[in-house]
Amino acid sequence: MTLQPVTVVLALPVADLERSLRFYRDGLGLATPGIDEDILAFELPNLSLFLIERSQYSTYLDRAGVAGLTAPAAGACVISCAIGTPDEVEDVLARAAAAGGASQKATEHDGSCAGYFSDPDGHLWELVNNHTTQAAQA
Amino acid sequence: MTLQPVTVVLALPVADLERSLRFYRDGLGLATPGIDEDILAFELPNLSLFLIERSQYSTYLDRAGVAGLTAPAAGACVISCAIGTPDEVEDVLARAAAAGGASQKATEHDGSCAGYFSDPDGHLWELVNNHTTQAAQA
Repeated sequence: MTLQPVTVVLALPVADLERSLRFYRDGLGLATPGIDEDILAFELPNLSLFLIERSQYSTYLDRAGVAGLTAPAAGACVISCAIGTPDEVEDVLARAAAAGGASQKATEHDGSCAGYFSDPDGHLWELVNNHTTQAAQA
Repeated sequence: MTLQPVTVVLALPVADLERSLRFYRDGLGLATPGIDEDILAFELPNLSLFLIERSQYSTYLDRAGVAGLTAPAAGACVISCAIGTPDEVEDVLARAAAAGGASQKATEHDGSCAGYFSDPDGHLWELVNNHTTQAAQA
């Protein structure tokens, strides 16, 4: 049988769930049922994200027979978000910085506006506004 | 404004797009429009996945001001799939191994069957079948 998942979840390790809760819920304004069994879950369009406390995440990797990471791997993956307006990109970058993340000023080229921020664990997010995004909203 | 993405995409770096195409399309049977502009895209339930050729991915990280990874970070994230039946978990693990990935035999505990495989770049996937999965399909 081929791979036909019923649902898919992206799991990322974090060092401190309370800190992640402050960053994502209080800082960025994402809805979440809160921390449950060492997991902080967020439902985004096209992405179910589970932030898992690092020691819990390690037992996960142990079961998979994969050596745990000694340090967070910044840039190992990018969560890329299509955003409705360039102003919204700027606002979210400012919120991320204020909430304890690292963000850069957005840059624009070819009618596309892109910005990046890292969460307190170094997980990288991209925010993009372009013609495609605008069309998707129309 | 809070973070309210229109859509979200997970981007992962790969060394060889043709190899990834063989693994995911020919091996696991995932549908894809194919390689386009150094990107191989897959649409899964709750996940839009972009596999990006590594040098292209690096320019992405450069823009973000993040140092590129010198080696793939196995276990940096886990893509976890809820699977309809235990047999399907076993079948997909066998396919992954035959297609050039690394996989382990699935293990069972508390009525839940879980297995893991890594793609040729070391990206880790989890396959889970449990009561929740079965209920979601009913």
